[in-house]
Amino acid sequence: MLVRFAGLGLGAATLTTVAAASGNSNVDVLTSSPDVSSFMAEPVTPLSTLVKDKDDMKVKMEMLIMKIQADFCRALENEEDPSKKFIVDRWTRAEGGGGVTCVIQNGKTFEKAGVNVSVVHGILPVDAVRQMKARGKELIGKELPFFAAGISSVIHPSNPHVPTVHFNYRYFEVTQENGEKMWWFGGGTDLTPYYFVEEDVRHFHSTLKNACDQHDAGYYPKFKKWCDEYFLVSHRNECRGVGGIFFDDFEMHSQEDCFKFVKSCAESVIPSYVPLVKKHRNDPYTSAERDWQLLRRGRYVEFNLVYDRGTKFGLYTPGARIESILMSLPVYAKWEYMHSPSDGTPEAKLTEILKNPKEWI
Amino acid sequence: MLVRFAGLGLGAATLTTVAAASGNSNVDVLTSSPDVSSFMAEPVTPLSTLVKDKDDMKVKMEMLIMKIQADFCRALENEEDPSKKFIVDRWTRAEGGGGVTCVIQNGKTFEKAGVNVSVVHGILPVDAVRQMKARGKELIGKELPFFAAGISSVIHPSNPHVPTVHFNYRYFEVTQENGEKMWWFGGGTDLTPYYFVEEDVRHFHSTLKNACDQHDAGYYPKFKKWCDEYFLVSHRNECRGVGGIFFDDFEMHSQEDCFKFVKSCAESVIPSYVPLVKKHRNDPYTSAERDWQLLRRGRYVEFNLVYDRGTKFGLYTPGARIESILMSLPVYAKWEYMHSPSDGTPEAKLTEILKNPKEWI
Repeated sequence: MLVRFAGLGLGAATLTTVAAASGNSNVDVLTSSPDVSSFMAEPVTPLSTLVKDKDDMKVKMEMLIMKIQADFCRALENEEDPSKKFIVDRWTRAEGGGGVTCVIQNGKTFEKAGVNVSVVHGILPVDAVRQMKARGKELIGKELPFFAAGISSVIHPSNPHVPTVHFNYRYFEVTQENGEKMWWFGGGTDLTPYYFVEEDVRHFHSTLKNACDQHDAGYYPKFKKWCDEYFLVSHRNECRGVGGIFFDDFEMHSQEDCFKFVKSCAESVIPSYVPLVKKHRNDPYTSAERDWQLLRRGRYVEFNLVYDRGTKFGLYTPGARIESILMSLPVYAKWEYMHSPSDGTPEAKLTEILKNPKEWI
Repeated sequence: MLVRFAGLGLGAATLTTVAAASGNSNVDVLTSSPDVSSFMAEPVTPLSTLVKDKDDMKVKMEMLIMKIQADFCRALENEEDPSKKFIVDRWTRAEGGGGVTCVIQNGKTFEKAGVNVSVVHGILPVDAVRQMKARGKELIGKELPFFAAGISSVIHPSNPHVPTVHFNYRYFEVTQENGEKMWWFGGGTDLTPYYFVEEDVRHFHSTLKNACDQHDAGYYPKFKKWCDEYFLVSHRNECRGVGGIFFDDFEMHSQEDCFKFVKSCAESVIPSYVPLVKKHRNDPYTSAERDWQLLRRGRYVEFNLVYDRGTKFGLYTPGARIESILMSLPVYAKWEYMHSPSDGTPEAKLTEILKNPKEWI
């Protein structure tokens, strides 16, 4: 096992690169329950704690996101050239916790695919607390003890006919100045196509809706709307993509019920997205279509760097692993002054849809 | 003269495209004093006002920045393929004022060159006021009447051996809730090389220092330090480039003295930068060097979208012309997970310098 030390932008983090999932002998030895043998790397929390505190939500969430990460990475590898596997970086955060970042770069199917798990704790600084308040949470105190476990992923395929997908599911615990402990879940899955194929968008939304409907028929309409509102590139008055679901401050029920809902959502990522990869990854495309994909990726960068609260939260958290946060950015992006697609083209059609979010099912 | 209507992201702005500077017959007819015949387009403010209020700082600043724009664009065109001229978009802002945006895109020397003048007025919204407060200005009131005239430019050359330059000079007037009127200047010029050539950096800084020294020997050291601090990509703990000068809230002297200082700074842009273009624009380069240029342009995008207050101020100002604000973004940018240049390479040398800003003269 190769241990590299803090490189560019790593701050105080120490990094372990696991050459490939198959070579991950460290995981193979962990054969006792809980079953972590299929994970991309050893979980962040020591196995003894995972066993001892198995009913603690912090542990349950970590186990869930490690499994979701492994399942999703393997499903993507199935669509990729067999010689191209995820690189797996397991990292620790000096201030508390760590994570596992899995990346494919310059693959045949995936120009960039990042799937990141982080399980961190410590003191939340003022700027990060402010990002949370902006999200609706009224937290008492300036610097607060916190725990956060989440999975976050952005997939930028090579072929412009395969959409980009993003998902993020997270669990927070914060202790306020008055000693009161709060917990909540947040998350969502959303699709950003470069070319609009109605049946694909319907398939994607239907899969998410089915996951939601298992828990509450009111969730999908509410969280679909929230998604359209959240992923808005305000300065251009257009949505980042065709939406999906998005929710935050999720704490209306028992912790267990909330967790089950989040689990259903996270488990719906593969069936919502991977069929679209399978369907389009070998579609022929032109250099003009590639160009359009890069221009849209420029918009993706605009959203992520200007508006995305998850990104800002990361950038304002000391010891955050910048390379894991910014793995959401595409390999290439493009900006052209005053670019506007010609009327009647597929590019104009997509633009029209992004400016007028609609109901898909 | 072609009049186009509000396109993508233009909001309520109306746009006039002047095909090229030479075809700008609208300007040729303005032969009376003040002399605006050499400008890239007709000034924003009606000629009659420019004559009547010629001693008003608002008018003096508009005349200065229109001239600086024309001089700089012509100097850049001299380094470009003769068939490639700036496109000139003169636009008006529904809420008050307008601007002139000049852009070369996909030129031989300049992959993207943008030189923008804006002269706007109206009511400053809460979010924009907040951006100003963050800058040190304590403004009384939530929504304030304001006037802002500024020139802003970013030049992204094609050849990786030619540095990127940015400059921005601006004049503000704000009337506070208590009726008190405030004015101040701000601005700066800074250089972002892809490869470090010490004598070029010294030439650049010396030229700016000479401009500063004409007014106060204390300016250059102070504004050089401010520049290093401002153009910091905090989350990577590296500077955007090798700096230059940066100042804000400039109001220590008479308005006239402040203006003269700003004029000297703005006039030093051509002699500080154009010789570097001339020197390197035909340097041979490899695809690996081009790749490094694109990765560094990714960092430029990170700074501009995450930190730059000018960009944020623009994005939060209603009716702002988004295409003029974001013309600062390069045509292409690149992100690679965990990219780090090898020890001993010119790329590593630049990175080292960006992490440790130093004195150049």
